[in-house]
Amino acid sequence: MMGSSDIELLKLRDRIRTFALDRDWDQFHTPKNLAMALVAEAGELIEPFQWLTAEQSKCLDSDQLSHVRDEVADVFIYLIRLADKLDIDLIESANKKIDANYKKYPVSESFGSAKKYTQK
Amino acid sequence: MMGSSDIELLKLRDRIRTFALDRDWDQFHTPKNLAMALVAEAGELIEPFQWLTAEQSKCLDSDQLSHVRDEVADVFIYLIRLADKLDIDLIESANKKIDANYKKYPVSESFGSAKKYTQK
Amino acid sequence: MMGSSDIELLKLRDRIRTFALDRDWDQFHTPKNLAMALVAEAGELIEPFQWLTAEQSKCLDSDQLSHVRDEVADVFIYLIRLADKLDIDLIESANKKIDANYKKYPVSESFGSAKKYTQK
Amino acid sequence: MMGSSDIELLKLRDRIRTFALDRDWDQFHTPKNLAMALVAEAGELIEPFQWLTAEQSKCLDSDQLSHVRDEVADVFIYLIRLADKLDIDLIESANKKIDANYKKYPVSESFGSAKKYTQK
Repeated sequence: MMGSSDIELLKLRDRIRTFALDRDWDQFHTPKNLAMALVAEAGELIEPFQWLTAEQSKCLDSDQLSHVRDEVADVFIYLIRLADKLDIDLIESANKKIDANYKKYPVSESFGSAKKYTQK
Repeated sequence: MMGSSDIELLKLRDRIRTFALDRDWDQFHTPKNLAMALVAEAGELIEPFQWLTAEQSKCLDSDQLSHVRDEVADVFIYLIRLADKLDIDLIESANKKIDANYKKYPVSESFGSAKKYTQK
Repeated sequence: MMGSSDIELLKLRDRIRTFALDRDWDQFHTPKNLAMALVAEAGELIEPFQWLTAEQSKCLDSDQLSHVRDEVADVFIYLIRLADKLDIDLIESANKKIDANYKKYPVSESFGSAKKYTQK
Repeated sequence: MMGSSDIELLKLRDRIRTFALDRDWDQFHTPKNLAMALVAEAGELIEPFQWLTAEQSKCLDSDQLSHVRDEVADVFIYLIRLADKLDIDLIESANKKIDANYKKYPVSESFGSAKKYTQK
Protein backbone atom coordinates (compact mmCIF):
# COMPACT_ATOMS: atom_id res chain seq x y z
CA MET A 1 0.00 0.00 0.00
CA MET A 2 2.71 2.46 0.85
CA GLY A 3 6.16 3.17 -0.48
CA SER A 4 9.21 1.86 1.37
CA SER A 5 10.03 5.16 3.04
CA ASP A 6 6.79 5.27 5.02
CA ILE A 7 7.85 2.93 7.75
CA GLU A 8 5.38 4.22 10.32
CA LEU A 9 2.39 4.04 7.98
CA LEU A 10 3.30 0.48 7.02
CA LYS A 11 3.64 -0.44 10.68
CA LEU A 12 0.20 1.05 11.40
CA ARG A 13 -1.37 -0.86 8.53
CA ASP A 14 0.18 -4.06 9.87
CA ARG A 15 -0.95 -3.40 13.43
CA ILE A 16 -4.52 -2.87 12.22
CA ARG A 17 -4.33 -6.02 10.08
CA THR A 18 -3.12 -8.09 13.01
CA PHE A 19 -5.72 -6.63 15.34
CA ALA A 20 -8.55 -7.62 12.98
CA LEU A 21 -7.07 -11.01 12.18
CA ASP A 22 -6.64 -11.96 15.85
CA ARG A 23 -10.34 -11.19 16.47
CA ASP A 24 -11.60 -12.85 13.26
CA TRP A 25 -12.98 -9.46 12.18
CA ASP A 26 -11.99 -9.70 8.53
CA GLN A 27 -15.47 -11.06 7.88
CA PHE A 28 -16.90 -7.65 8.89
CA HIS A 29 -14.27 -5.58 7.12
CA THR A 30 -15.72 -5.45 3.62
CA PRO A 31 -14.97 -2.20 1.77
CA LYS A 32 -18.67 -1.31 2.06
CA ASN A 33 -18.69 -1.73 5.85
CA LEU A 34 -15.36 0.05 6.30
CA ALA A 35 -16.64 3.03 4.30
CA MET A 36 -19.66 3.12 6.63
CA ALA A 37 -17.46 2.95 9.73
CA LEU A 38 -15.28 5.74 8.35
CA VAL A 39 -18.21 8.08 7.75
CA ALA A 40 -19.67 7.26 11.18
CA GLU A 41 -16.34 8.30 12.74
CA ALA A 42 -16.23 11.42 10.56
CA GLY A 43 -19.68 12.26 11.98
CA GLU A 44 -18.27 11.90 15.50
CA LEU A 45 -15.35 14.13 14.50
CA ILE A 46 -17.67 16.91 13.39
CA GLU A 47 -19.82 16.80 16.51
CA PRO A 48 -17.45 18.68 18.88
CA PHE A 49 -17.21 21.50 16.31
CA GLN A 50 -20.88 21.95 15.48
CA TRP A 51 -21.77 24.73 17.90
CA LEU A 52 -18.34 26.42 18.00
CA THR A 53 -17.57 29.63 16.17
CA ALA A 54 -14.74 29.59 13.65
CA GLU A 55 -12.51 31.28 16.21
CA GLN A 56 -13.42 28.87 19.00
CA SER A 57 -12.60 25.92 16.74
CA LYS A 58 -9.01 27.22 16.55
CA CYS A 59 -8.62 27.36 20.35
CA LEU A 60 -9.84 24.01 21.65
CA ASP A 61 -9.26 23.38 25.33
CA SER A 62 -7.37 20.24 26.31
CA ASP A 63 -10.53 18.14 26.78
CA GLN A 64 -11.89 19.13 23.40
CA LEU A 65 -8.54 18.56 21.72
CA SER A 66 -8.19 15.15 23.31
CA HIS A 67 -11.67 14.23 22.06
CA VAL A 68 -10.92 15.47 18.55
CA ARG A 69 -7.57 13.66 18.52
CA ASP A 70 -9.37 10.41 19.30
CA GLU A 71 -11.86 10.90 16.47
CA VAL A 72 -9.12 11.91 14.03
CA ALA A 73 -7.34 8.68 14.96
CA ASP A 74 -10.50 6.63 14.33
CA VAL A 75 -11.00 8.15 10.89
CA PHE A 76 -7.33 7.53 10.06
CA ILE A 77 -7.48 3.90 11.22
CA TYR A 78 -10.52 3.13 9.05
CA LEU A 79 -8.99 5.02 6.13
CA ILE A 80 -5.81 2.93 6.35
CA ARG A 81 -7.87 -0.25 6.68
CA LEU A 82 -10.11 0.59 3.69
CA ALA A 83 -7.10 1.51 1.57
CA ASP A 84 -5.42 -1.75 2.57
CA LYS A 85 -8.48 -3.81 1.57
CA LEU A 86 -8.72 -2.05 -1.81
CA ASP A 87 -4.96 -2.01 -2.39
CA ILE A 88 -4.92 1.77 -2.59
CA ASP A 89 -1.62 3.56 -1.91
CA LEU A 90 -2.68 6.44 0.36
CA ILE A 91 0.41 8.55 -0.21
CA GLU A 92 0.43 8.09 -3.96
CA SER A 93 -3.30 8.74 -4.38
CA ALA A 94 -3.12 11.92 -2.29
CA ASN A 95 -0.16 13.19 -4.31
CA LYS A 96 -2.01 12.51 -7.56
CA LYS A 97 -5.05 14.36 -6.25
CA ILE A 98 -2.91 17.36 -5.31
CA ASP A 99 -1.37 17.29 -8.79
CA ALA A 100 -4.89 17.41 -10.24
CA ASN A 101 -5.86 20.23 -7.89
CA TYR A 102 -2.98 22.32 -9.21
CA LYS A 103 -4.63 22.18 -12.62
CA LYS A 104 -8.19 22.73 -11.38
CA TYR A 105 -7.33 25.64 -9.12
CA PRO A 106 -4.66 27.85 -10.74
CA VAL A 107 -3.49 30.57 -8.36
CA SER A 108 -4.57 33.30 -10.78
CA GLU A 109 -8.21 32.18 -10.62
CA SER A 110 -8.38 30.84 -7.07
CA PHE A 111 -6.56 33.42 -4.98
CA GLY A 112 -8.69 34.24 -1.96
CA SER A 113 -11.76 32.50 -3.40
CA ALA A 114 -13.36 29.34 -2.04
CA LYS A 115 -15.48 28.82 -5.12
CA LYS A 116 -15.52 25.29 -6.41
CA TYR A 117 -13.83 25.02 -9.79
CA THR A 118 -17.17 24.09 -11.39
CA GLN A 119 -18.63 27.41 -10.29
CA LYS A 120 -16.02 29.63 -11.86
CA MET B 1 2.94 16.63 13.14
CA MET B 2 4.72 13.44 12.19
CA GLY B 3 7.85 11.70 13.36
CA SER B 4 11.05 12.03 11.40
CA SER B 5 10.77 8.67 9.67
CA ASP B 6 7.54 9.55 7.84
CA ILE B 7 9.14 11.50 5.06
CA GLU B 8 6.27 11.04 2.66
CA LEU B 9 3.59 12.11 5.12
CA LEU B 10 5.61 15.21 6.01
CA LYS B 11 6.03 16.01 2.34
CA LEU B 12 2.29 15.66 1.81
CA ARG B 13 1.51 17.94 4.74
CA ASP B 14 3.90 20.53 3.30
CA ARG B 15 2.47 20.28 -0.21
CA ILE B 16 -1.04 20.86 1.18
CA ARG B 17 0.22 23.78 3.28
CA THR B 18 1.87 25.41 0.30
CA PHE B 19 -1.16 24.83 -1.90
CA ALA B 20 -3.43 26.63 0.58
CA LEU B 21 -0.93 29.39 1.28
CA ASP B 22 -0.42 30.19 -2.40
CA ARG B 23 -4.19 30.61 -2.83
CA ASP B 24 -4.73 32.54 0.40
CA TRP B 25 -7.02 29.73 1.58
CA ASP B 26 -5.85 29.64 5.18
CA GLN B 27 -8.70 32.00 6.00
CA PHE B 28 -11.16 29.20 5.06
CA HIS B 29 -9.21 26.39 6.72
CA THR B 30 -10.48 26.68 10.28
CA PRO B 31 -10.68 23.35 12.11
CA LYS B 32 -14.48 23.65 11.99
CA ASN B 33 -14.54 24.08 8.22
CA LEU B 34 -11.95 21.37 7.62
CA ALA B 35 -13.99 18.91 9.70
CA MET B 36 -17.01 19.76 7.52
CA ALA B 37 -15.02 19.27 4.32
CA LEU B 38 -13.74 15.95 5.61
CA VAL B 39 -17.22 14.61 6.36
CA ALA B 40 -18.50 15.87 3.00
CA GLU B 41 -15.75 13.87 1.30
CA ALA B 42 -16.51 10.86 3.49
CA GLY B 43 -20.10 11.12 2.24
CA GLU B 44 -18.82 11.05 -1.34
CA LEU B 45 -16.69 8.03 -0.47
CA ILE B 46 -19.70 6.08 0.77
CA GLU B 47 -21.85 6.88 -2.24
CA PRO B 48 -20.30 4.37 -4.71
CA PHE B 49 -20.80 1.60 -2.13
CA GLN B 50 -24.39 2.29 -1.12
CA TRP B 51 -26.22 -0.05 -3.47
CA LEU B 52 -23.49 -2.71 -3.72
CA THR B 53 -23.65 -6.02 -1.91
CA ALA B 54 -20.83 -6.85 0.48
CA GLU B 55 -19.36 -9.12 -2.17
CA GLN B 56 -19.61 -6.55 -4.94
CA SER B 57 -17.81 -4.02 -2.74
CA LYS B 58 -14.80 -6.34 -2.71
CA CYS B 59 -14.65 -6.58 -6.51
CA LEU B 60 -14.84 -3.02 -7.80
CA ASP B 61 -14.27 -2.56 -11.50
CA SER B 62 -11.54 -0.15 -12.59
CA ASP B 63 -13.92 2.84 -12.92
CA GLN B 64 -15.37 2.27 -9.47
CA LEU B 65 -11.92 1.77 -7.96
CA SER B 66 -10.62 4.93 -9.58
CA HIS B 67 -13.59 6.86 -8.19
CA VAL B 68 -13.08 5.41 -4.70
CA ARG B 69 -9.33 6.12 -4.84
CA ASP B 70 -10.09 9.77 -5.57
CA GLU B 71 -12.47 10.05 -2.63
CA VAL B 72 -10.06 8.23 -0.30
CA ALA B 73 -7.41 10.76 -1.34
CA ASP B 74 -9.75 13.67 -0.58
CA VAL B 75 -10.54 12.35 2.89
CA PHE B 76 -6.82 11.80 3.53
CA ILE B 77 -5.89 15.31 2.36
CA TYR B 78 -8.44 16.98 4.67
CA LEU B 79 -7.42 14.69 7.53
CA ILE B 80 -3.77 15.70 7.14
CA ARG B 81 -4.77 19.35 6.89
CA LEU B 82 -7.01 19.22 9.98
CA ALA B 83 -4.32 17.40 11.97
CA ASP B 84 -1.78 19.99 10.87
CA LYS B 85 -4.00 22.89 11.99
CA LEU B 86 -4.61 21.25 15.39
CA ASP B 87 -1.03 20.07 15.79
CA ILE B 88 -2.14 16.44 16.02
CA ASP B 89 0.40 13.75 15.19
CA LEU B 90 -1.60 11.34 13.00
CA ILE B 91 0.72 8.38 13.43
CA GLU B 92 1.06 8.78 17.18
CA SER B 93 -2.66 9.31 17.79
CA ALA B 94 -3.57 6.24 15.71
CA ASN B 95 -1.05 4.11 17.61
CA LYS B 96 -2.44 5.30 20.93
CA LYS B 97 -5.97 4.49 19.78
CA ILE B 98 -4.92 0.99 18.77
CA ASP B 99 -3.25 0.55 22.17
CA ALA B 100 -6.56 1.52 23.78
CA ASN B 101 -8.48 -0.84 21.50
CA TYR B 102 -6.31 -3.74 22.70
CA LYS B 103 -7.68 -3.12 26.19
CA LYS B 104 -11.29 -2.53 25.12
CA TYR B 105 -11.49 -5.56 22.85
CA PRO B 106 -9.56 -8.47 24.35
CA VAL B 107 -9.40 -11.43 21.96
CA SER B 108 -11.15 -13.69 24.45
CA GLU B 109 -14.27 -11.51 24.44
CA SER B 110 -14.18 -10.15 20.91
CA PHE B 111 -13.35 -13.15 18.74
CA GLY B 112 -15.79 -13.24 15.83
CA SER B 113 -18.08 -10.65 17.41
CA ALA B 114 -18.69 -7.14 16.10
CA LYS B 115 -20.41 -6.01 19.27
CA LYS B 116 -19.30 -2.67 20.54
CA TYR B 117 -17.46 -2.97 23.83
CA THR B 118 -20.25 -1.06 25.59
CA GLN B 119 -22.75 -3.75 24.59
CA LYS B 120 -20.88 -6.67 26.07
CA MET C 1 -42.75 25.97 5.74
CA MET C 2 -45.47 23.41 5.30
CA GLY C 3 -48.86 23.38 3.70
CA SER C 4 -51.94 23.74 5.84
CA SER C 5 -52.83 20.06 5.81
CA ASP C 6 -49.65 19.01 7.60
CA ILE C 7 -50.79 19.85 11.06
CA GLU C 8 -48.39 17.50 12.78
CA LEU C 9 -45.34 18.72 10.89
CA LEU C 10 -46.26 22.32 11.66
CA LYS C 11 -46.71 21.44 15.32
CA LEU C 12 -43.30 19.78 15.35
CA ARG C 13 -41.65 22.78 13.74
CA ASP C 14 -43.24 25.01 16.37
CA ARG C 15 -42.23 22.77 19.26
CA ILE C 16 -38.62 22.84 18.03
CA ARG C 17 -38.76 26.62 17.59
CA THR C 18 -40.05 27.12 21.11
CA PHE C 19 -37.53 24.73 22.57
CA ALA C 20 -34.64 26.66 21.02
CA LEU C 21 -36.11 30.05 21.84
CA ASP C 22 -36.63 29.19 25.51
CA ARG C 23 -32.96 28.21 25.80
CA ASP C 24 -31.62 31.14 23.76
CA TRP C 25 -30.21 28.64 21.28
CA ASP C 26 -31.07 30.55 18.12
CA GLN C 27 -27.59 32.04 18.27
CA PHE C 28 -26.17 28.53 17.64
CA HIS C 29 -28.75 27.53 15.03
CA THR C 30 -27.19 29.01 11.91
CA PRO C 31 -27.88 27.00 8.76
CA LYS C 32 -24.19 26.05 8.71
CA ASN C 33 -24.28 24.68 12.26
CA LEU C 34 -27.60 22.90 11.73
CA ALA C 35 -26.26 21.19 8.62
CA MET C 36 -23.30 20.00 10.72
CA ALA C 37 -25.58 18.74 13.48
CA LEU C 38 -27.71 16.92 10.92
CA VAL C 39 -24.74 15.10 9.38
CA ALA C 40 -23.39 14.23 12.84
CA GLU C 41 -26.75 12.62 13.64
CA ALA C 42 -26.77 10.86 10.27
CA GLY C 43 -23.37 9.43 11.22
CA GLU C 44 -24.87 8.13 14.46
CA LEU C 45 -27.74 6.63 12.48
CA ILE C 46 -25.37 4.66 10.26
CA GLU C 47 -23.32 3.32 13.15
CA PRO C 48 -25.73 0.56 14.31
CA PHE C 49 -25.89 -0.74 10.72
CA GLN C 50 -22.20 -0.78 9.87
CA TRP C 51 -21.34 -4.37 10.75
CA LEU C 52 -24.76 -5.88 9.97
CA THR C 53 -25.46 -7.89 6.86
CA ALA C 54 -28.22 -6.65 4.56
CA GLU C 55 -30.51 -9.33 5.98
CA GLN C 56 -29.70 -8.49 9.61
CA SER C 57 -30.48 -4.84 8.93
CA LYS C 58 -34.04 -5.87 8.07
CA CYS C 59 -34.54 -7.74 11.34
CA LEU C 60 -33.39 -5.40 14.09
CA ASP C 61 -34.07 -6.53 17.63
CA SER C 62 -36.01 -4.18 19.89
CA ASP C 63 -32.87 -2.56 21.37
CA GLN C 64 -31.43 -1.90 17.94
CA LEU C 65 -34.73 -0.58 16.64
CA SER C 66 -35.13 1.71 19.61
CA HIS C 67 -31.62 3.07 19.02
CA VAL C 68 -32.28 3.60 15.31
CA ARG C 69 -35.64 5.26 16.04
CA ASP C 70 -33.87 7.75 18.29
CA GLU C 71 -31.31 8.60 15.62
CA VAL C 72 -33.98 8.87 12.92
CA ALA C 73 -35.80 11.32 15.19
CA ASP C 74 -32.64 13.40 15.67
CA VAL C 75 -32.04 13.63 11.93
CA PHE C 76 -35.69 14.59 11.39
CA ILE C 77 -35.59 17.27 14.09
CA TYR C 78 -32.51 18.94 12.61
CA LEU C 79 -33.94 18.64 9.12
CA ILE C 80 -37.14 20.41 10.19
CA ARG C 81 -35.10 23.06 11.99
CA LEU C 82 -32.78 23.67 9.03
CA ALA C 83 -35.73 23.87 6.64
CA ASP C 84 -37.44 26.31 9.00
CA LYS C 85 -34.38 28.56 9.15
CA LEU C 86 -34.03 28.57 5.35
CA ASP C 87 -37.77 28.84 4.72
CA ILE C 88 -37.79 25.57 2.78
CA ASP C 89 -41.08 23.69 2.49
CA LEU C 90 -40.06 20.10 3.18
CA ILE C 91 -43.12 18.50 1.61
CA GLU C 92 -43.04 20.64 -1.50
CA SER C 93 -39.31 20.25 -2.08
CA ALA C 94 -39.53 16.47 -1.70
CA ASN C 95 -42.41 16.31 -4.16
CA LYS C 96 -40.48 18.39 -6.68
CA LYS C 97 -37.46 16.12 -6.29
CA ILE C 98 -39.59 13.05 -6.91
CA ASP C 99 -41.05 14.73 -10.00
CA ALA C 100 -37.50 15.29 -11.24
CA ASN C 101 -36.55 11.70 -10.44
CA TYR C 102 -39.39 10.46 -12.67
CA LYS C 103 -37.62 12.15 -15.58
CA LYS C 104 -34.10 11.08 -14.61
CA TYR C 105 -35.00 7.45 -13.99
CA PRO C 106 -37.60 6.26 -16.52
CA VAL C 107 -38.82 2.76 -15.72
CA SER C 108 -37.65 1.47 -19.09
CA GLU C 109 -34.02 2.34 -18.32
CA SER C 110 -33.96 1.89 -14.56
CA PHE C 111 -35.82 -1.35 -13.95
CA GLY C 112 -33.77 -3.48 -11.57
CA SER C 113 -30.70 -1.31 -11.97
CA ALA C 114 -29.16 0.86 -9.25
CA LYS C 115 -26.93 2.72 -11.68
CA LYS C 116 -26.87 6.43 -11.20
CA TYR C 117 -28.45 8.26 -14.10
CA THR C 118 -25.08 9.81 -14.98
CA GLN C 119 -23.62 6.35 -15.52
CA LYS C 120 -26.19 5.15 -18.00
CA MET D 1 -45.97 5.14 9.67
CA MET D 2 -47.71 8.40 10.23
CA GLY D 3 -50.87 9.47 12.00
CA SER D 4 -54.02 10.09 10.00
CA SER D 5 -53.71 13.87 10.04
CA ASP D 6 -50.45 13.91 8.10
CA ILE D 7 -51.97 13.51 4.69
CA GLU D 8 -49.04 15.03 2.85
CA LEU D 9 -46.43 12.91 4.60
CA LEU D 10 -48.44 9.77 3.89
CA LYS D 11 -48.76 10.75 0.26
CA LEU D 12 -45.01 11.29 0.04
CA ARG D 13 -44.32 7.91 1.60
CA ASP D 14 -46.63 6.32 -0.94
CA ARG D 15 -45.10 8.14 -3.90
CA ILE D 16 -41.64 6.96 -2.83
CA ARG D 17 -42.93 3.41 -2.36
CA THR D 18 -44.49 3.37 -5.81
CA PHE D 19 -41.39 4.87 -7.40
CA ALA D 20 -39.18 2.13 -5.97
CA LEU D 21 -41.68 -0.63 -6.70
CA ASP D 22 -42.07 0.37 -10.34
CA ARG D 23 -38.30 0.17 -10.82
CA ASP D 24 -37.84 -3.05 -8.83
CA TRP D 25 -35.61 -1.13 -6.44
CA ASP D 26 -36.88 -2.70 -3.22
CA GLN D 27 -34.03 -5.19 -3.52
CA PHE D 28 -31.58 -2.30 -2.98
CA HIS D 29 -33.58 -0.58 -0.26
CA THR D 30 -32.41 -2.50 2.79
CA PRO D 31 -32.29 -0.39 5.96
CA LYS D 32 -28.49 -0.63 5.83
CA ASN D 33 -28.31 0.73 2.29
CA LEU D 34 -30.90 3.44 2.94
CA ALA D 35 -28.94 4.63 5.98
CA MET D 36 -25.87 4.87 3.73
CA ALA D 37 -27.78 6.79 1.07
CA LEU D 38 -29.11 9.16 3.72
CA VAL D 39 -25.66 9.96 5.10
CA ALA D 40 -24.27 10.41 1.58
CA GLU D 41 -27.00 12.98 0.91
CA ALA D 42 -26.31 14.63 4.28
CA GLY D 43 -22.69 14.94 3.14
CA GLU D 44 -23.88 16.67 -0.03
CA LEU D 45 -26.04 18.96 2.08
CA ILE D 46 -23.08 20.08 4.16
CA GLU D 47 -20.84 20.77 1.17
CA PRO D 48 -22.36 24.13 0.12
CA PHE D 49 -21.92 25.40 3.70
CA GLN D 50 -18.36 24.29 4.38
CA TRP D 51 -16.49 27.46 3.42
CA LEU D 52 -19.22 29.95 4.36
CA THR D 53 -19.12 32.04 7.51
CA ALA D 54 -22.01 31.70 9.94
CA GLU D 55 -23.44 34.95 8.59
CA GLN D 56 -23.09 33.94 4.94
CA SER D 57 -24.93 30.68 5.68
CA LYS D 58 -27.96 32.77 6.70
CA CYS D 59 -28.00 34.73 3.43
CA LEU D 60 -27.76 32.16 0.66
CA ASP D 61 -28.24 33.48 -2.85
CA SER D 62 -30.90 31.86 -5.00
CA ASP D 63 -28.50 29.37 -6.62
CA GLN D 64 -27.16 28.25 -3.25
CA LEU D 65 -30.65 28.01 -1.79
CA SER D 66 -31.89 25.98 -4.72
CA HIS D 67 -28.94 23.61 -4.29
CA VAL D 68 -29.56 23.26 -0.56
CA ARG D 69 -33.28 22.74 -1.10
CA ASP D 70 -32.48 19.83 -3.42
CA GLU D 71 -30.19 18.21 -0.87
CA VAL D 72 -32.68 18.76 1.96
CA ALA D 73 -35.28 17.02 -0.21
CA ASP D 74 -32.93 14.07 -0.82
CA VAL D 75 -32.26 13.63 2.89
CA PHE D 76 -35.99 13.84 3.61
CA ILE D 77 -36.87 11.28 0.93
CA TYR D 78 -34.38 8.72 2.27
CA LEU D 79 -35.47 9.44 5.83
CA ILE D 80 -39.11 8.75 4.92
CA ARG D 81 -38.09 5.61 3.04
CA LEU D 82 -35.94 4.29 5.89
CA ALA D 83 -38.68 5.00 8.43
CA ASP D 84 -41.18 3.22 6.18
CA LYS D 85 -38.97 0.13 5.89
CA LEU D 86 -38.46 -0.02 9.67
CA ASP D 87 -42.06 0.89 10.49
CA ILE D 88 -40.97 3.98 12.38
CA ASP D 89 -43.51 6.78 12.83
CA LEU D 90 -41.46 9.90 12.07
CA ILE D 91 -43.81 12.35 13.76
CA GLU D 92 -44.24 10.25 16.87
CA SER D 93 -40.54 9.47 17.27
CA ALA D 94 -39.60 13.15 16.87
CA ASN D 95 -42.18 14.18 19.47
CA LYS D 96 -40.87 11.58 21.90
CA LYS D 97 -37.33 12.80 21.36
CA ILE D 98 -38.37 16.38 22.05
CA ASP D 99 -40.13 15.21 25.22
CA ALA D 100 -36.86 13.58 26.30
CA ASN D 101 -34.90 16.71 25.43
CA TYR D 102 -37.11 18.74 27.76
CA LYS D 103 -35.83 16.57 30.60
CA LYS D 104 -32.19 16.51 29.48
CA TYR D 105 -31.96 20.24 28.87
CA PRO D 106 -33.94 22.16 31.51
CA VAL D 107 -34.04 25.87 30.74
CA SER D 108 -32.38 26.73 34.04
CA GLU D 109 -29.24 24.77 33.12
CA SER D 110 -29.22 25.21 29.35
CA PHE D 111 -30.01 28.87 28.80
CA GLY D 112 -27.51 30.28 26.32
CA SER D 113 -25.24 27.25 26.60
CA ALA D 114 -24.56 24.74 23.83
CA LYS D 115 -22.93 22.26 26.17
CA LYS D 116 -24.04 18.70 25.72
CA TYR D 117 -25.98 17.46 28.72
CA THR D 118 -23.22 14.93 29.44
CA GLN D 119 -20.73 17.76 29.88
CA LYS D 120 -22.68 19.67 32.49
